[in-house]
Amino acid sequence: MKRIRGGITLPKGFFQAGIHCGIKKRNLDLALILSEVPAAAAGLFTSNSFKAAPVILSKKYLDKKSHRAVIINSGNANCLTGKAGIADSIAISDKLGSLIGCRKEGVLVCSTGIIGKRLPMSKIKKSLPLLVSSLHRAHSKKAANAIMTTDTFLKEAAYSVKIGRKSISLAGITKGAGMIEPNMATMLAIITTDARVEKRLLKKALKEAAGESFNSITIDGDMSTNDAIIVLANGLSGVDISESNWAYMKFVEALKALCLDLAKMVVKDGEGATKFIKIEVIGAKDFSQAREVGLKIANSPLFKTMCYGDNPNFGRIAAACGAVSRPINPAKVDIYLNGRKALDKGVAVSDKLPRNIFRGKNIKIRVCLNSGMAQTVIFTSDLSPEYVKINAAYS
Amino acid sequence: MKRIRGGITLPKGFFQAGIHCGIKKRNLDLALILSEVPAAAAGLFTSNSFKAAPVILSKKYLDKKSHRAVIINSGNANCLTGKAGIADSIAISDKLGSLIGCRKEGVLVCSTGIIGKRLPMSKIKKSLPLLVSSLHRAHSKKAANAIMTTDTFLKEAAYSVKIGRKSISLAGITKGAGMIEPNMATMLAIITTDARVEKRLLKKALKEAAGESFNSITIDGDMSTNDAIIVLANGLSGVDISESNWAYMKFVEALKALCLDLAKMVVKDGEGATKFIKIEVIGAKDFSQAREVGLKIANSPLFKTMCYGDNPNFGRIAAACGAVSRPINPAKVDIYLNGRKALDKGVAVSDKLPRNIFRGKNIKIRVCLNSGMAQTVIFTSDLSPEYVKINAAYS
Repeated sequence: MKRIRGGITLPKGFFQAGIHCGIKKRNLDLALILSEVPAAAAGLFTSNSFKAAPVILSKKYLDKKSHRAVIINSGNANCLTGKAGIADSIAISDKLGSLIGCRKEGVLVCSTGIIGKRLPMSKIKKSLPLLVSSLHRAHSKKAANAIMTTDTFLKEAAYSVKIGRKSISLAGITKGAGMIEPNMATMLAIITTDARVEKRLLKKALKEAAGESFNSITIDGDMSTNDAIIVLANGLSGVDISESNWAYMKFVEALKALCLDLAKMVVKDGEGATKFIKIEVIGAKDFSQAREVGLKIANSPLFKTMCYGDNPNFGRIAAACGAVSRPINPAKVDIYLNGRKALDKGVAVSDKLPRNIFRGKNIKIRVCLNSGMAQTVIFTSDLSPEYVKINAAYS
Repeated sequence: MKRIRGGITLPKGFFQAGIHCGIKKRNLDLALILSEVPAAAAGLFTSNSFKAAPVILSKKYLDKKSHRAVIINSGNANCLTGKAGIADSIAISDKLGSLIGCRKEGVLVCSTGIIGKRLPMSKIKKSLPLLVSSLHRAHSKKAANAIMTTDTFLKEAAYSVKIGRKSISLAGITKGAGMIEPNMATMLAIITTDARVEKRLLKKALKEAAGESFNSITIDGDMSTNDAIIVLANGLSGVDISESNWAYMKFVEALKALCLDLAKMVVKDGEGATKFIKIEVIGAKDFSQAREVGLKIANSPLFKTMCYGDNPNFGRIAAACGAVSRPINPAKVDIYLNGRKALDKGVAVSDKLPRNIFRGKNIKIRVCLNSGMAQTVIFTSDLSPEYVKINAAYS
């Protein structure tokens, strides 16, 4: 397995397009990823009770055996739009399906942007022929660009994996950047691969990979109505991936690495983020305790602001640990800041933590609960005045 | 019952002092509230697993039948200080007890401020005689002043209640201002009353009053290690409050009003707060659902920043509602912003919400789940760049 330069069209038989259709004032706002042959598809979606129309529809479409394309618009989430919103998403998949030669169920739909407004359907419909005629295999980054909202940089990654004498590739694009919370985030990610993977197995692999990547990141604890991760596997590499064989291990390993790369980019581009923070929780009673502690720290505004301020005020980390639903034993807890012990069995080690211990872009927190064998890693960003400004103004 | 001007010494037989002992550079940092006769006392404390030394100690002291005083220092939380920290708090209560003529268990102890540092004991011990000799009954606001940390204004309230031909009074002081979260907040509140209330009944009344006040406010969802609400009832009014009689109803009513006044002041003085936000959740299946929905909205950074920005982006309120642990039915939810319907049965009402609907200091959100009869009210503040600046710098 190696990480390689390249975008969403690196796997064989995938095409991309990204155009401006007028949902946004200036930037690209409509993207299309297409497989030249029917592909197996799997998806993971937000667990928010308020699901946007494209989420409701794509989940339903995924009952079908194969799919040809994913269409994504940015600038409007098509959420809280009721039956009319669902009808809009259906109309898009229907029209696009007829242009690329498949039934509407073959076209998965994603949206991201403002909530509570109808899509400008005439603009979108009018632009679909141009979108299809713009499809290409070049590494143009057009699709990655067209799915961005408040992202400040484009997010793509690709891997190549040798399996025997043949090789497969996997590639993905994603967008953040606020409302990022496990299970999941207003995060869209589209992943393509030319491996041949049966639909049920593809879903299993995606779940496994997302658990250690997209579901282990948080920016602000808010959970979006539109989150979606979709993977398309078109089989054109000629390499079969089947359960519990060696090739499956390699495939999942690469899918994990790809998802983790993409998820970390989302954290690095968290709204207003100036720090990339890794929180390791070890020695927990069980995985759910480790996860609750990690997320409680990661989502604490006081923790996030102290990271922004290069301020090693570890008492706030202890306070966050102690605020979880199942009591922890404070007299067993150790806390390390960038490798330096700050709390030893519940007692502050010294007043003399170097003031500059948090300088630099990366912060690593390690919490040892010393109560068991379970552990986890959570990635997050800091909370800056810029985050507030972005989200106070966005509408 | 009427709200009256006056501070913590309004009830008969209470004295206050507030001095500078040197924990902080300049401001008052040591407060004392004393009853001239032994008083019944009750307390509610943080549910954080990491409890500060004074919390551990005061909880233990409250097993005793009567108490004389509460001593509070600001500038240092005496937390994560292990056994040495407990010994420090004991030494303070011991020395003060000998100065005022009671055993150490008669002196309850509170601390607030930075976590992870030992108290400057020699400065504190040296100042205790001055603290005691400064005690007075005037409305000097000295004690209320000495408990402040990042508070920007002093918080006190008082009520007088006629019961037959006699009257009782209740008064309280409190401090906020970050780390405010139900169950509870780095919030200290000391309440005095000259009613005669049996200890067990006093605890019951305090719990009832706190539920609708201190436990229904949140600033940033962080939970402190030092929270404490303590009430002292010295009986000097000569009015007996006993269970389920009319006087008890009047007493609880006044205690609730007092606590709610103090709690609202804490929210208004939330770090960097520019808005006072009231969130009503009605039509929930049960109280815990109402509460989870209310707190999820109140603690959402995206919701808080939109309030700061006068930005009626109600999709964020819906997204927060939908992110609670038990699924809600989105097709039943109505949302009102300052009295104006924005979401009707899960569908956005109109694009034309007035842009200025959030102008002004007060924001009122009403969420109707239309799924049952339970309801609650949560008070919170917005999230401003100033909050970030305060907490990035504080140490």
